[in-house]
Amino acid sequence: MRAFLAILAAAVALLAGQADAQPRARDLGVPFEGTPGPLNAITDVAGVTVGQVTLIEDAPADPQRKVRTGITAILPRGRDTLNLPVFGAYFALNGNGEMTGAHWIEESGQVEGPIALTNTHSVGIVRDAIIAWRVRAGPPDPSGYWWSLPVVAETWDGDLNDINGFHVRPEHVWRALDEAKGGPVAEGNVGGGTGMICHEFKCGIGTASRVVQVNERPFVVGALVQANYGVRSTLRIAGVPVGAHLPVAHSPADDSGSIIIVIATDAPLLPTQLKRVARRAGMGLARLGSYAGNGSGDIFIAFSTANRDALTGAAVARAEFLNNETLNSLFEATVQATEEAIVNAMVAARDMTGTEGHSAKALPHRDLVRLLRRYRRYEPRASAR
Amino acid sequence: MRAFLAILAAAVALLAGQADAQPRARDLGVPFEGTPGPLNAITDVAGVTVGQVTLIEDAPADPQRKVRTGITAILPRGRDTLNLPVFGAYFALNGNGEMTGAHWIEESGQVEGPIALTNTHSVGIVRDAIIAWRVRAGPPDPSGYWWSLPVVAETWDGDLNDINGFHVRPEHVWRALDEAKGGPVAEGNVGGGTGMICHEFKCGIGTASRVVQVNERPFVVGALVQANYGVRSTLRIAGVPVGAHLPVAHSPADDSGSIIIVIATDAPLLPTQLKRVARRAGMGLARLGSYAGNGSGDIFIAFSTANRDALTGAAVARAEFLNNETLNSLFEATVQATEEAIVNAMVAARDMTGTEGHSAKALPHRDLVRLLRRYRRYEPRASAR
Amino acid sequence: MRAFLAILAAAVALLAGQADAQPRARDLGVPFEGTPGPLNAITDVAGVTVGQVTLIEDAPADPQRKVRTGITAILPRGRDTLNLPVFGAYFALNGNGEMTGAHWIEESGQVEGPIALTNTHSVGIVRDAIIAWRVRAGPPDPSGYWWSLPVVAETWDGDLNDINGFHVRPEHVWRALDEAKGGPVAEGNVGGGTGMICHEFKCGIGTASRVVQVNERPFVVGALVQANYGVRSTLRIAGVPVGAHLPVAHSPADDSGSIIIVIATDAPLLPTQLKRVARRAGMGLARLGSYAGNGSGDIFIAFSTANRDALTGAAVARAEFLNNETLNSLFEATVQATEEAIVNAMVAARDMTGTEGHSAKALPHRDLVRLLRRYRRYEPRASAR
Amino acid sequence: MRAFLAILAAAVALLAGQADAQPRARDLGVPFEGTPGPLNAITDVAGVTVGQVTLIEDAPADPQRKVRTGITAILPRGRDTLNLPVFGAYFALNGNGEMTGAHWIEESGQVEGPIALTNTHSVGIVRDAIIAWRVRAGPPDPSGYWWSLPVVAETWDGDLNDINGFHVRPEHVWRALDEAKGGPVAEGNVGGGTGMICHEFKCGIGTASRVVQVNERPFVVGALVQANYGVRSTLRIAGVPVGAHLPVAHSPADDSGSIIIVIATDAPLLPTQLKRVARRAGMGLARLGSYAGNGSGDIFIAFSTANRDALTGAAVARAEFLNNETLNSLFEATVQATEEAIVNAMVAARDMTGTEGHSAKALPHRDLVRLLRRYRRYEPRASAR
Repeated sequence: MRAFLAILAAAVALLAGQADAQPRARDLGVPFEGTPGPLNAITDVAGVTVGQVTLIEDAPADPQRKVRTGITAILPRGRDTLNLPVFGAYFALNGNGEMTGAHWIEESGQVEGPIALTNTHSVGIVRDAIIAWRVRAGPPDPSGYWWSLPVVAETWDGDLNDINGFHVRPEHVWRALDEAKGGPVAEGNVGGGTGMICHEFKCGIGTASRVVQVNERPFVVGALVQANYGVRSTLRIAGVPVGAHLPVAHSPADDSGSIIIVIATDAPLLPTQLKRVARRAGMGLARLGSYAGNGSGDIFIAFSTANRDALTGAAVARAEFLNNETLNSLFEATVQATEEAIVNAMVAARDMTGTEGHSAKALPHRDLVRLLRRYRRYEPRASAR
Repeated sequence: MRAFLAILAAAVALLAGQADAQPRARDLGVPFEGTPGPLNAITDVAGVTVGQVTLIEDAPADPQRKVRTGITAILPRGRDTLNLPVFGAYFALNGNGEMTGAHWIEESGQVEGPIALTNTHSVGIVRDAIIAWRVRAGPPDPSGYWWSLPVVAETWDGDLNDINGFHVRPEHVWRALDEAKGGPVAEGNVGGGTGMICHEFKCGIGTASRVVQVNERPFVVGALVQANYGVRSTLRIAGVPVGAHLPVAHSPADDSGSIIIVIATDAPLLPTQLKRVARRAGMGLARLGSYAGNGSGDIFIAFSTANRDALTGAAVARAEFLNNETLNSLFEATVQATEEAIVNAMVAARDMTGTEGHSAKALPHRDLVRLLRRYRRYEPRASAR
Repeated sequence: MRAFLAILAAAVALLAGQADAQPRARDLGVPFEGTPGPLNAITDVAGVTVGQVTLIEDAPADPQRKVRTGITAILPRGRDTLNLPVFGAYFALNGNGEMTGAHWIEESGQVEGPIALTNTHSVGIVRDAIIAWRVRAGPPDPSGYWWSLPVVAETWDGDLNDINGFHVRPEHVWRALDEAKGGPVAEGNVGGGTGMICHEFKCGIGTASRVVQVNERPFVVGALVQANYGVRSTLRIAGVPVGAHLPVAHSPADDSGSIIIVIATDAPLLPTQLKRVARRAGMGLARLGSYAGNGSGDIFIAFSTANRDALTGAAVARAEFLNNETLNSLFEATVQATEEAIVNAMVAARDMTGTEGHSAKALPHRDLVRLLRRYRRYEPRASAR
Repeated sequence: MRAFLAILAAAVALLAGQADAQPRARDLGVPFEGTPGPLNAITDVAGVTVGQVTLIEDAPADPQRKVRTGITAILPRGRDTLNLPVFGAYFALNGNGEMTGAHWIEESGQVEGPIALTNTHSVGIVRDAIIAWRVRAGPPDPSGYWWSLPVVAETWDGDLNDINGFHVRPEHVWRALDEAKGGPVAEGNVGGGTGMICHEFKCGIGTASRVVQVNERPFVVGALVQANYGVRSTLRIAGVPVGAHLPVAHSPADDSGSIIIVIATDAPLLPTQLKRVARRAGMGLARLGSYAGNGSGDIFIAFSTANRDALTGAAVARAEFLNNETLNSLFEATVQATEEAIVNAMVAARDMTGTEGHSAKALPHRDLVRLLRRYRRYEPRASAR
């Protein structure tokens, strides 16, 4: 029944979403492998909710400076996130970035509480605000400890955003957490991704999902990225050398951005297995032409919403898990969903003018379609999604 | 000349310090191995400065609640810290804690900027305040990046401190950074250690150092701890089962605190070698009877102040380093200095009454001396230090 | 019933063992914390078997050269080891040594097959011989893979053993595997420990165990060490500075040996939790005065015999596991059992003359007792064990 | 002068090599990014030598069984390899495989001695044979230790090779080591790659290189792979979905092979930096469509031949190294060289019939060219290389 309602909600959301008619990557004919879930979003993993607060305004003190930032919060178990941890793991492909809470994820094999994405200079305020939110929500658990190590990751939006103005405030964090919901996830210039740039195109938040069968049971793998990495020249989409055809005028830049990738699944995986999943996110990123530049904080986190009753605090618990021998379709789904989520972020982003007159152009859809056709990779879809 | 002045300064500081006549562990007859530096402190490593801000006051909104917290900042190169990174590494013996900036330490092999210690719920504000401090101090480097991932670690002072009052403010951080200096380091109920407890005795900040010879060159290893871990029953000091003789009345507690250990050295070590050093800090901790309890965030960081000119930003640099075969005396010094720093933290701490009437007693010096004598481990010193 | 028979067997073995009247560390009055199992051995963990082949003979080609080596094999599930993996993890405190199969332990969270300990130069032949043994034992599993990555670790016995004679042969390996059994475990100059030296005393194999209660269920933690590390000067036993009182004549040596520590438990732990256990083995080692010297391969492996039916190859399985919050007594037991196992190895070892006239003296029991008395740490036991 | 002779030797070798007229991937029109070195091989890194012994014969005891295996040895400093370690690091993308010696690489930051690649069941004999070779070559170093932890990695050739016959013998190992040389490197069905299969095409050894400029100095990055991984369906070459067009008849297989990737460079990099390089090898692999299947041992090792005088055993040494900020071109070169080395392995391999009648077909060059043309990715070269 729960599952039925989730699917119904997804279908309604889908129809609602189509009214907006914002094309996503596959709507433009980009070919992808595998079968997406109904929303083709991380929220296809039942129970996962996403809250985003987007800050686009003038800096209060100085109208020359512009606020182009925000927060994206992923709650692994929706409103139960604070009370019910999930098994989780992280992997840093290139650790030039921050993801707080990582020591405890590594040690405990669990993600406790929400995962928040924001700009580099606001990690601290978001972290402490999550603690304050937890404190407001009720008494601590007996140990007084588990809720104290929030997971906050970041990418750097200082080109477009007045990052040194520290514009993210606790109330923004609380709003993102309180308003998190299932259903379609806004992409592009939203939430933590508001001011992000990748492959020198305007970028931001993107998401995708895959449905796979393991031993005749269906499982979902969902990816959400805050993408801010990469140089133009190496950009490949579906194997097409897009970057080579759309060069930037200035001298070649370094791959100095970052990308945070969040992988969710309802497959029952142990922490060691989720670490394996997290590593595969980097293989999806590699398909886009990234070489994980020195300046890029490429940090990935994976969690499983299965085993809802395993981490309730009982002294002895039982967890279901898949045999390592069965994980290949989940690994492949992780690569595929990550790849598509990144392209979705680029496709959804829009041109933006930001602080001190800096601006970034989005990937022109027309050019993308033209290049897909040229390399015989254009695959029009019957459905809009 | 530089070295001479440093020694002179140390001697002056030593005399000044003795005026206070606060006994340290070896003043009480605790036997330790190895040869300490002139201050027996992390500041024996030339260039390292320490700034501490101690907050002991009533909570503004509620006099029932007490502020018992603070900040301890270690600047690896003193005032040059922002411009001259050091080689560094970290190790999490038990990652139930936070140390931000760790991903980049692991990736780069460098510690860039200060290392700040505070309470668990103030990590975020301290982190962002360090960025703001850096922004105020001047323009970013060309990449706009290196200064963005501050290193802030924590232990939990919620028993004595109104931790959910979030009393650490950016100006406290800036003061600790601005006032950091060499010379003797205050121990016990100060800085980040203000409200800490270890082995169920009042505890806090402690420090110690060792001088060793490698290939006829002298090197210093300094340790500074923010100690907040451990149960009474397992406490051993110099091999003496102190905890067994000074039981606590209540039922046995868990080892649910934490300890942050900072190791500094002027020995020229590469990042991989500093990771080896960091791991040895845990062996010093083990000598005290710790078993690194589940709730304990036992995270260690090590850095080398050598190779001052190696990390200035030049494209090609040269670094001096010691052969792995020569590291044993440095490893041993790390174990020894860590062990003594922890005992120093306990010896320096004083009884404290904190928030909501909670209190913690310090280790009674008289009992310590009595037990050392009983087990024939009492070693009176000719000098007071 | 199974448990009853195991206890009965243990009792019989105990009586048999006492006939030999070889004192172990606690028989000499060394005080230890915690409650040992009936055998005070890794075989107190039900199902674990140990096989040892000791090679003490002249080198065939040259009677000046002596063979002083062997193999110790630990089978986590006895005869079912090949078909039923266990959850497992490893930790390298100082990786100057070999433990093959570690990549797959890290990746899979499992130990598949036996764990073999031998000398440094025989790791290869032991490894391939385990594969050959597996091939002889029956057909491969469907994947043809799981049995191909044997776990073989080593310490260096080249002082006493003609290590470059490569005297370990496949048939020795097969014998150790075929003859592995439960019950008391021979200690000292046996198996892989035959030619080992620690703290410059003759050493070798040692074992110990602890029984703890978690949530009113009893669990066993067993340790087995092949100990070959350490310098004399730092040796502490039960906190007593034994090494300082029994100096060696020659100039101080480096801590250039190694120690392999195997931790077994019947507590249901996940791989991430077993890695936590493995790290604690180093804290037991630290209590003896080790600082993990550069030349020391200090590598630890931990496994759980629980969840017998979880890793049978089924696509979906369930595993029982303990809440992280309950692990402290297991962590403490790991530290305690490791500490005692090392002392047991030293106490059980006997003087040995080896290759090229090299020799090593065992720790004199009389001196040990004398020093324990001197420091008021002598604790005579009512029972001999 | 040394450099001049190296180039001269390379040029001669090149001419000699062209006489064979074995096309490599770029000869067939596969487009690659970046600039290869003169040999487009790992041996473009001056000083690196490669020795390969190929075993193709009937199994002595049973003519039904076929030997299709061998050894590939990479000597980072050629004949000086035993006396002069190199800085090095490894990374396991998926640790379902063996690479011995990895603990010490991780700990020391050095690779000491050769790197040998062979089949899964011969790792042990190759390991011990390398020790024996070292023992024969002269006295141990003073510590008696450094040469004892050989680096041997493997992939599984049991489909084509009688792997359980254990046909690799010590003399094969010694021959590979003794005959190692610079110049062109044989690819395909040779050495350790003799019986390997990737993407369900016959595969084996492949190599490639890139020349990059850092701060106006040229550096070489070379890759050598022993490739045995992957399923047909996901194979992409230069972004072209080759696998989708050349399906295999049988039901889809798992990605159950493995790939060992060796990256050499003459750029002066520290161990932490070489670990970064090693991780990028996986991004080159990802470009081919790998998702690092559960059964795949995807383990990578990187070393730098710079700093020849830094690791000679002196107590204090100096090493040159590149600023982290300059590494992007080396990272990109690693991805590119890895990608091309894998395709070279597939292009060079030839159809093979092996043990028990098993066989594997090589990638048909004609089909590859056809598909490159179809997707407008065919790039004919003026030169044969």
